[in-house]
Amino acid sequence: MAARAGVSRQTVSNVLNSPEVVRPATRNRVQLAIDELGYRPHASARRLRTRQSSTIGIRLDPVAGGISGSILDRYLHALVAHADGRSMRITLFTASDPADEIAHYARLRDGADIDGVVVTATQYDDPRIEWLARERMPFVAFGRPWGAERADDPDRLWVDVDGRAGVRAATEHLIGRGLTRIGFLGWPAGSGTGDDRRSGWEAAMVTAFGLGASALAELTIEATEGVPNARIAVERLLASGAGLDALVCASDALGLGAMMAVREAGHPHFPVIGFDNTPVAKAVGLSSVDQRLDVVARATLELLMGPEGTRVLPHGSAAADAAHRLITPQLIVRRSSHLAPVEEAGGSKAFDHNEREQEE
Amino acid sequence: MAARAGVSRQTVSNVLNSPEVVRPATRNRVQLAIDELGYRPHASARRLRTRQSSTIGIRLDPVAGGISGSILDRYLHALVAHADGRSMRITLFTASDPADEIAHYARLRDGADIDGVVVTATQYDDPRIEWLARERMPFVAFGRPWGAERADDPDRLWVDVDGRAGVRAATEHLIGRGLTRIGFLGWPAGSGTGDDRRSGWEAAMVTAFGLGASALAELTIEATEGVPNARIAVERLLASGAGLDALVCASDALGLGAMMAVREAGHPHFPVIGFDNTPVAKAVGLSSVDQRLDVVARATLELLMGPEGTRVLPHGSAAADAAHRLITPQLIVRRSSHLAPVEEAGGSKAFDHNEREQEE
Repeated sequence: MAARAGVSRQTVSNVLNSPEVVRPATRNRVQLAIDELGYRPHASARRLRTRQSSTIGIRLDPVAGGISGSILDRYLHALVAHADGRSMRITLFTASDPADEIAHYARLRDGADIDGVVVTATQYDDPRIEWLARERMPFVAFGRPWGAERADDPDRLWVDVDGRAGVRAATEHLIGRGLTRIGFLGWPAGSGTGDDRRSGWEAAMVTAFGLGASALAELTIEATEGVPNARIAVERLLASGAGLDALVCASDALGLGAMMAVREAGHPHFPVIGFDNTPVAKAVGLSSVDQRLDVVARATLELLMGPEGTRVLPHGSAAADAAHRLITPQLIVRRSSHLAPVEEAGGSKAFDHNEREQEE
Repeated sequence: MAARAGVSRQTVSNVLNSPEVVRPATRNRVQLAIDELGYRPHASARRLRTRQSSTIGIRLDPVAGGISGSILDRYLHALVAHADGRSMRITLFTASDPADEIAHYARLRDGADIDGVVVTATQYDDPRIEWLARERMPFVAFGRPWGAERADDPDRLWVDVDGRAGVRAATEHLIGRGLTRIGFLGWPAGSGTGDDRRSGWEAAMVTAFGLGASALAELTIEATEGVPNARIAVERLLASGAGLDALVCASDALGLGAMMAVREAGHPHFPVIGFDNTPVAKAVGLSSVDQRLDVVARATLELLMGPEGTRVLPHGSAAADAAHRLITPQLIVRRSSHLAPVEEAGGSKAFDHNEREQEE
């Protein structure tokens, strides 16, 4: 810069900080060099000194897809909003696999481009989390490390939604309406999220009716994620004559498929409850369990940065009083199904703290 | 740094660049200071020199909402993926109003945190675009400056989707199937996007059947965005006995509402076509017009950065051969409506370059 303008460093500094002390001709020459080189001292210089980029990194996959594919997007919206409240920004990048994602973390960290990361779509013994913990890089995982022994490790911060509690609240809402043969439509066993959600239905049914394994199995339907799959599975069930009062589902896609099947079978009032409270659930009047992603996003930043006002991002649990946050979702009860020719009449009485009623 | 370690600048530089020439004890002392200060030279230093942050800024609003609310999210996914192909990142921030957004632009630019921005949700005489053009800051708008005289200004780059062409293709597809009384369900007149989409239906109907204003008006239904609104509007229309063969809609939410109304009125084969090809359209088997956001995202970066391989972000049209890109959307024809008790039998013959058929 100084060389380019043919002046001393001090002169450059003067032009930037107290231009009035510099002769106009010199000032112009330096300004030209500044414009030419696009010299921008403030944030970058501060970043070099303090390594505070005021930026959090998060991977965004090329495709979302599916009715519930918007969940991470809604989380991202909430995260950006809460980060803004702390004068933080979110930087997005894409990665082909965990190793590539780790390489991005390292590059962004070494470039002082980010102060910490939020890890999503966590898996068993996630290599990204192992790397972040080893590098002592500030991070929070959205999603429990299913089955990992490390789930309680104070160095591995995570926030998640209590799917079991949400599905249990949905099931108990139906039990409170006097229904007894409440089925569960879920994904094939084996997914941490799916098994967790089904366990909430089981807990409610066992507590209320003391059902045994065979009785539970009889009320359980499986379908891979997707409206048509769910619709076919429920059509079969209805054809088989298995008397059901209501269905609690592991997702809104399954819920929508189930709703179509029962409405077309001529049951305008048959209650169906989905999970995720996606725009489509609201659109068709499907009751659903809301993940409260706004609360999840706020908890994520509290774990990562500590209480509001904190600007540093220490690694690990030093950041927060607790190393993990399990958010209780909220049941959204919709009385009027837009798929039913007749508006649903039956309503619920008992509402608990995580249950809300909506008329649309 | 040097002061903190009690050594000369040259020694610090040696430790960073050729540590072997430095005595171990000194090296350790400097390394300690480096760790302590979190000194990270690479990217930030380069940024100070070159003002290349390899980052593009884009505002993300707190809430998406609605069935088509995911459009900007899907655009963002595609943008991040294509940016990654150019070793660029996307930085997100939120803003309460255009003035606040402009303040963010200035801060990010002055901090050398971004090289350019993508502006979404553009309005008439958008103050953000005026500011960016005046500051000669590299930008591309997703969305035409509706009604602005500046729409052809080579200094105001924009990319948009040709909604008129998409709705015209949808209408012509139905005409090709031998249908004549094809209605249009759109938003109340006055929105640039909505009027543009309706004009595509009008063009097709006028060309095919030479309809006049009154005949067109008779086939036009208005509803504010939302499934229930659309459903009620179409139920009324059907009750009024206005004989219709099919409906082309301005959005998937309107399309879904229309589909529910006609299916419940006992028309399992009545064709309905939506717009945006959202996950819900795929889920319920609703034909729709896909905005090809992947193509839109690629075009955005070509306008902003020039052809693949370019790393600089010159301001204005210097970046690209053309200053504007109008992307032709693609009609997705779905034969089987998951809302209909019977699978739809009728199919189309003629397919043109921007029409695709999907069985789900």
